[in-house]
Amino acid sequence: MIGSRLSALSGHGRHILFCLVAVGFLSSCAPTQPTAQQPKVNDLLPSWNEGVAKQVIIQFCDAAVDPASASYVSPEERIAVFDNDGTLWPEKPLNVELTFAIERLRRLAPAHPQWLEEQPFAAVLQNHAEYLSDLEESDLLKIFIAAETEITNEEFVRDVKRWLETARHPRFGGHYTDLAYQPMLELLAYLRSRAFQIYICSGSDMEFLRTFAPEVYGILPENVIGNSALMEFRPSSTHPMFFRLPKPIEPNNNRGGKPVNIKLRVGRIPIIAVGNSDGDIQMLQLVDGQNDEALILLLNHDDAQREYAYDEGAEEVLEAAKQSQWTIVSMKKDFKVVFPFSR
Amino acid sequence: MIGSRLSALSGHGRHILFCLVAVGFLSSCAPTQPTAQQPKVNDLLPSWNEGVAKQVIIQFCDAAVDPASASYVSPEERIAVFDNDGTLWPEKPLNVELTFAIERLRRLAPAHPQWLEEQPFAAVLQNHAEYLSDLEESDLLKIFIAAETEITNEEFVRDVKRWLETARHPRFGGHYTDLAYQPMLELLAYLRSRAFQIYICSGSDMEFLRTFAPEVYGILPENVIGNSALMEFRPSSTHPMFFRLPKPIEPNNNRGGKPVNIKLRVGRIPIIAVGNSDGDIQMLQLVDGQNDEALILLLNHDDAQREYAYDEGAEEVLEAAKQSQWTIVSMKKDFKVVFPFSR
Repeated sequence: MIGSRLSALSGHGRHILFCLVAVGFLSSCAPTQPTAQQPKVNDLLPSWNEGVAKQVIIQFCDAAVDPASASYVSPEERIAVFDNDGTLWPEKPLNVELTFAIERLRRLAPAHPQWLEEQPFAAVLQNHAEYLSDLEESDLLKIFIAAETEITNEEFVRDVKRWLETARHPRFGGHYTDLAYQPMLELLAYLRSRAFQIYICSGSDMEFLRTFAPEVYGILPENVIGNSALMEFRPSSTHPMFFRLPKPIEPNNNRGGKPVNIKLRVGRIPIIAVGNSDGDIQMLQLVDGQNDEALILLLNHDDAQREYAYDEGAEEVLEAAKQSQWTIVSMKKDFKVVFPFSR
Repeated sequence: MIGSRLSALSGHGRHILFCLVAVGFLSSCAPTQPTAQQPKVNDLLPSWNEGVAKQVIIQFCDAAVDPASASYVSPEERIAVFDNDGTLWPEKPLNVELTFAIERLRRLAPAHPQWLEEQPFAAVLQNHAEYLSDLEESDLLKIFIAAETEITNEEFVRDVKRWLETARHPRFGGHYTDLAYQPMLELLAYLRSRAFQIYICSGSDMEFLRTFAPEVYGILPENVIGNSALMEFRPSSTHPMFFRLPKPIEPNNNRGGKPVNIKLRVGRIPIIAVGNSDGDIQMLQLVDGQNDEALILLLNHDDAQREYAYDEGAEEVLEAAKQSQWTIVSMKKDFKVVFPFSR
């Protein structure tokens, strides 16, 4: 694998890598092992602390790409699937797409005076934080349908892009797209360097995700699995378009819907699954149950100081992880840094 | 592109290619052009007769892969989409998946005595050819739901595989999977050699298509877009499975549903579309309308001797092709051979 990465580097990169390899060779002759103070040479996961999670990731991937290993997996079967909200970026204080939808509803409100007397719209317009932080599925659906349908998909995408360029996270201050977890970005790059195909499998809208997934995660539009409004194609010789209908596609990409959409979209079962909440439990069960060997990671939000600490909405999956011996990633202990800007 | 293909060849292959290039260079100095009697050196589409269709394909692809061309397209945007039935393999005398579903219904019939008095099942069981050759959408749906749902997806896939191994085409005698059109197989390989991602976009069931698409077309499961039963995930620590519910996913992957599913699945608009029937018209319109330059091919079944000659079900798309100047591929004139076994 180092060879193939080498050949992709420019002359300058090769020089640096040559030095790193040389240093690695020298240090491997020395009697001491690398410690936290002496970062490992050629460490592709530098923002992960040494520990079980990092070790499990590296051991699993080393075996999967080694043709001599009994656990070797051919490149086309190297499929990894990641949840997005709470796994690749924060989902607190509120889910990011929901934050966008709420702000869009407020902009649309003057044309819909009836919303002031109808839930969940009244809670949105009155900024009822408690109500909004614990919405029922049916309320969420009402919000997404009111905010994100009955418009062309082109208009929707334009609006999402504009919003992402200006909106800022209420606690961390940065743009949402600057808040992807640094260790997860490294994990994505690490898997890609080992020829894994990486899919997002998220409860968020696919077109919402596609506005930033290529740039932020290096994940192409065709590798985004998520929810969506059903669309209608409106042909035209100059500018055919898609119109977002007030009806979601099925199945809802949460809980049992995630494995189904993975099956429908990919047609094969991933060997790596990464999630964080009860909505991911069946996705993790799918990958665990269908493979002799699989890498299942569950990110536990236990870091109130650098991000958030919460178990709500993850009680079941944390229990399942213990019973099924999935690898629990502790944000507090396993993440050396959380966000790219804190490097 | 020759350079990049060169670097992928072994020493032996390089030697042959060097000779071919040398011969090509010499022949390009000669005053005569290659004719039908003198096949072109290095022809990657040998089963296509020289003519407008072949010329349009080569010119479009040459420009798309040439960084110096104004029509250059980056590799990740090189997306091609093919209809399956009637485009990549025959759809006469009856659609292949429908033939499978009908045979399965006959096997299931003893447990469903009421089918003898209910259409379309009575027509199926009595082999009413006229009725079956002109089924309404609603009848088709009833047949697919009765034949292909209320079973696990694993059982369905096993049954499809068994059937494809034994069933034979009533006129040509071969297995259905031996009937992929040779010129289309060459076109798929040609596009792949130019780094195109190729998707099937078919009205057939995705899991049906996935049983043979990788082997026959070289198209991976994740690149198959089609219809499906909605599924339910049934977790288990040893053998989780998918159960096929008696309800189709939306939108139906025909006519206006094809562009929508391409948008939902790929997230980007292909630059090449290949189809043959009115069910493909909106897919072709999408690719035509969303690109400054696109390659739109419509296969016209006009060869009663070697395959079939029919316009029924293609009247609208043939008219649209003329109006929009899409390239009509004549099976009779453009296909040197039709099936691989006739080479």
